[in-house]
Amino acid sequence: MRFFSDNAASVHPSVLDAMAQANHVDTAYDGDALSGALDAAFSEVFETEVTALWIATGTAANALALATLCPPYRGIVCHRDAHIQNDEAGAPEFYSGGAKLLGAEGEAAKLTPATITGLLDGIANDVHRTQAAAISITNATEYGQSYAPSEVTAIGALAKERGLRLHMDGARFANAVVHTGATPADLTWRSGVEALSFGFIKNGGLSAEALILFDRSLADEVRIRRKRAGHLSSKGRYQAAQILAMLKGDLWLTNARAANAGAIRLAEAAAGRLINPVQANEVFVVMHAGEVAKLREQGFDFYDWGPGEARFVVSWDQPEAEIAALATALAAL
Amino acid sequence: MRFFSDNAASVHPSVLDAMAQANHVDTAYDGDALSGALDAAFSEVFETEVTALWIATGTAANALALATLCPPYRGIVCHRDAHIQNDEAGAPEFYSGGAKLLGAEGEAAKLTPATITGLLDGIANDVHRTQAAAISITNATEYGQSYAPSEVTAIGALAKERGLRLHMDGARFANAVVHTGATPADLTWRSGVEALSFGFIKNGGLSAEALILFDRSLADEVRIRRKRAGHLSSKGRYQAAQILAMLKGDLWLTNARAANAGAIRLAEAAAGRLINPVQANEVFVVMHAGEVAKLREQGFDFYDWGPGEARFVVSWDQPEAEIAALATALAAL
Amino acid sequence: MRFFSDNAASVHPSVLDAMAQANHVDTAYDGDALSGALDAAFSEVFETEVTALWIATGTAANALALATLCPPYRGIVCHRDAHIQNDEAGAPEFYSGGAKLLGAEGEAAKLTPATITGLLDGIANDVHRTQAAAISITNATEYGQSYAPSEVTAIGALAKERGLRLHMDGARFANAVVHTGATPADLTWRSGVEALSFGFIKNGGLSAEALILFDRSLADEVRIRRKRAGHLSSKGRYQAAQILAMLKGDLWLTNARAANAGAIRLAEAAAGRLINPVQANEVFVVMHAGEVAKLREQGFDFYDWGPGEARFVVSWDQPEAEIAALATALAAL
Amino acid sequence: MRFFSDNAASVHPSVLDAMAQANHVDTAYDGDALSGALDAAFSEVFETEVTALWIATGTAANALALATLCPPYRGIVCHRDAHIQNDEAGAPEFYSGGAKLLGAEGEAAKLTPATITGLLDGIANDVHRTQAAAISITNATEYGQSYAPSEVTAIGALAKERGLRLHMDGARFANAVVHTGATPADLTWRSGVEALSFGFIKNGGLSAEALILFDRSLADEVRIRRKRAGHLSSKGRYQAAQILAMLKGDLWLTNARAANAGAIRLAEAAAGRLINPVQANEVFVVMHAGEVAKLREQGFDFYDWGPGEARFVVSWDQPEAEIAALATALAAL
Repeated sequence: MRFFSDNAASVHPSVLDAMAQANHVDTAYDGDALSGALDAAFSEVFETEVTALWIATGTAANALALATLCPPYRGIVCHRDAHIQNDEAGAPEFYSGGAKLLGAEGEAAKLTPATITGLLDGIANDVHRTQAAAISITNATEYGQSYAPSEVTAIGALAKERGLRLHMDGARFANAVVHTGATPADLTWRSGVEALSFGFIKNGGLSAEALILFDRSLADEVRIRRKRAGHLSSKGRYQAAQILAMLKGDLWLTNARAANAGAIRLAEAAAGRLINPVQANEVFVVMHAGEVAKLREQGFDFYDWGPGEARFVVSWDQPEAEIAALATALAAL
Repeated sequence: MRFFSDNAASVHPSVLDAMAQANHVDTAYDGDALSGALDAAFSEVFETEVTALWIATGTAANALALATLCPPYRGIVCHRDAHIQNDEAGAPEFYSGGAKLLGAEGEAAKLTPATITGLLDGIANDVHRTQAAAISITNATEYGQSYAPSEVTAIGALAKERGLRLHMDGARFANAVVHTGATPADLTWRSGVEALSFGFIKNGGLSAEALILFDRSLADEVRIRRKRAGHLSSKGRYQAAQILAMLKGDLWLTNARAANAGAIRLAEAAAGRLINPVQANEVFVVMHAGEVAKLREQGFDFYDWGPGEARFVVSWDQPEAEIAALATALAAL
Repeated sequence: MRFFSDNAASVHPSVLDAMAQANHVDTAYDGDALSGALDAAFSEVFETEVTALWIATGTAANALALATLCPPYRGIVCHRDAHIQNDEAGAPEFYSGGAKLLGAEGEAAKLTPATITGLLDGIANDVHRTQAAAISITNATEYGQSYAPSEVTAIGALAKERGLRLHMDGARFANAVVHTGATPADLTWRSGVEALSFGFIKNGGLSAEALILFDRSLADEVRIRRKRAGHLSSKGRYQAAQILAMLKGDLWLTNARAANAGAIRLAEAAAGRLINPVQANEVFVVMHAGEVAKLREQGFDFYDWGPGEARFVVSWDQPEAEIAALATALAAL
Repeated sequence: MRFFSDNAASVHPSVLDAMAQANHVDTAYDGDALSGALDAAFSEVFETEVTALWIATGTAANALALATLCPPYRGIVCHRDAHIQNDEAGAPEFYSGGAKLLGAEGEAAKLTPATITGLLDGIANDVHRTQAAAISITNATEYGQSYAPSEVTAIGALAKERGLRLHMDGARFANAVVHTGATPADLTWRSGVEALSFGFIKNGGLSAEALILFDRSLADEVRIRRKRAGHLSSKGRYQAAQILAMLKGDLWLTNARAANAGAIRLAEAAAGRLINPVQANEVFVVMHAGEVAKLREQGFDFYDWGPGEARFVVSWDQPEAEIAALATALAAL
């Protein structure tokens, strides 16, 4: 029973259906009608005019956004445990031409105005030090914590005050929307976010994330960078189809709700050993080696997060029975 | 009737079926069984042990290969009309960190030992000039010409003599194999090719090309660069499935045969006006503005290649009726 | 007798004297009074407010300017024989993060609006092709030709019309000013030039070129890039001292006049065999192998420019006797 | 009285004399006899065959070495307070094409095998994490601490065991040699160092550091990268002359001895308030705001290192009277 990662989940049947329906001769690259429909579809989701581009991975979406928001000779403030800092093989440095990731502190991988300010104020304003140009926050964070609109707003205000651009890595944006109950608009542009990597692949998609540009003046540059990075698919319509299928009838929210609910159930079962409150589809628990071994013997697959810590991720397609089984096993430890 | 580009073609139903069959929970990235089967499948195709990686676009496959074969401070010899030089938005420069594309001459976008030697001999051997480190040839070329094994062998020998690495951009490799009748092995590693971008997307695939490494010592570096470029899909099994479907029963050859045959039929109809002999699935013809307009009026869509020149591309899924109609129209001009 | 290159010339005694006079404890980097005096000194030379920065080599000055004028994903139009294209080891690509040099044609390495337009019009306006962002011209050119103000103005107008930035590589700017008799202002910003690499090292300096920014809004970025490239000398005052010594009493013009006059004298002696008219301090002549050998036997050192061609460069410090001797020898061939 | 930085010091008269003596027509770039003498001169200093290149700044020397030792997609372990991490404007990232600096801990900016191992062991061995390729240590460190040969040897052994390259930033190498009493050989290649940025500019030089390659197979690549970075001076002989003058009669050691002795004298005067033992020419002391103000009123210029901390740097040319005055003032606080 796989609680290792939502990356391993299956693709929602509606997504595959939509791809099959897109299977006809059409204009190459992003000149087709489906790709052309993305802007309108996301503008509705976000209640404002946005530019939306498909992109094959979250790493590429993040790196494209950051390279556009930060010149090579400046820095990007992120949490020291952020995915862009630790898990993308240096993609932000590659795409940006060597911009520096400036790792700030914060509980459970969440930045705050205070931790960002602390970092910024330690950087003397001269040509020897790398000055920040952008901030990137992850919602939900690497530790499954969701930023509330007020938290994003506070960071957005700081960014504006300091002349910094604001990016959100939303690999699990759907889970954050579900947990906070906030509107997508309130969690992003109304709070100061200028570009969002909107994840679908962990949530039922196949090979299409969306890069949402609230600052539409960035679009031309992003399009060129996407091509230059080898991410302009010649048959982009199959990626657009995936995303439109995920948006249709709010499938993205339905899937995230299922995943979050499963995580909450696990959290209840593991109440005494939670490292963080569950605010998305991930559960981090304290667990000694003997307990880890016992769960593995019972057929549960999960991630050793650190010494004495374990991570369980619930996927959109996780069978009820698996969640129930794990809840029982956790409670029985 | 679309003769504009094979990029616009549909996806072969077997490819979509294979993707649907891959739709289950599985190991993320390239840890799944399908991705793991690629090395063996291509080793059979090439009659030698190779490492094979899926990659979402031909541009990315080319750029990854070239960045691995050429350091940032050296150059890549290619035809001045090569796709990597003109149509990839500077992806080779981006991936390599600023390596220089050194444009050589040659009929119909085909390099020869003579044109390569001419270029190399004009570069003084000092630190001021950018010294070449690699050669990249395209088979079939931008003008639809296929290199025969003897031609590749001659370039391979030159590369070895000069200490240069040899890459082949095989966006239309299938068409070249069909046209030449040569084995994939003879067209590549037996002739000195060390890395091949093996195209499937124009030929019935959806979002998976294969990067074939005949020099397997390059594999670790390429894998890191693929991740760093945001091209390590978390659900890579759907890309592996596409490729395996294309290889199964030699579907890739069947599709290329259909496309090449259509092009030959058009060539016969346009015999007097061919710019180059047809050696793949592309037909380049001399055509004055009036003729261009007349064909467009009849519903044919194609590419204005240059003043007084037009390009027609036959796709793997081009209906017989469309080919017949265009042949008739061309003959009637 | 060295007519090989003005790079080999000695340093003017006034320059060394000025460095010796700067030898005291002072503020590091460019915080000293001499560095601080550059803006005013060059503003007087150019009759407008400029920002002027010392930089150790012409290659670095060019690359810094171009990286600031052109983003990584766009191109720089230059002559296909330009120094930045052929003789700087890919420095523009390195500094810019992979921008593409777009080589245009033109007699004697000189660009014209027609050759630039021809190149630009051949680039389809889409994301696949690298779009130009800047033009770089060299004055005097690699073939010793000087642009007149009217020629620069025509290119400046084209640049403005096309939305391109304009850089001038002035490694031999002094020689061009002397030859044309134009003011520095007319040859640069009044004609549309936004950044100038102003050469001193070939003309009596030691290790200081000046990067002149007519668009002063570029200055902050250039200063950061200069540091990042390891070109912010901690003892910059010795570089500023060199430049101020070259400007004092128009030493830079005096030196260039001497060099140009020597070249004219050689040109008169070699009248029948000139490849280009002499418009700076370089003389390009047709010369068969036997003649080349004969001159070498007489102790003259010079550059084999191409088959049957030779280049003679007169330096600011070239002894009268050497010029006379070479003139005699050339006339006697 | 300037105790702010040794960067502000004057140039030793012998260095200026040597430059004046080099003032004649000679081969350009590094083809002259002085540049050609560097390898032998440093081979004697280091008791082994080395390749030695002049380079205009320490930042450039570090960045060139690191770019050659570490590919773009890997990381460089350094102290989190290292100069390359904090004070070079991202030069290592720029030169290397985006390699990641991996900041390790350690007392007084000194790495140890334990802190390096701790960092390395925290990096999972997969393509998502950036794997280290090199270690860079600074001798003397940012906090004026000198590594003893045994300490370097321990790091060298670890580097070898882990397959990492080892670089030493020796901006104050002379001070470390003087303090430890070790031979240059024992402090570098005998302990596993493969490339050394050997500083002269803070120690009486003008514009020449030496990059020493103990692994001589790196030399060709470094030479190309030096040109590409705009650091191949056309009149390199004036840089070689500086270095040879510094080596002559061990002037570099004489100067460092003077600076270190001054620092020791200050340390004795400030004995109760030292943050670290003095092991080079820098003195770090605890000092509250009132004390800082009092010293400034007395005409002493120095660096506020952090809250309640101050740094005093003694230069090679610091007048005895200034040292005595500061010692008295410190003792009187």
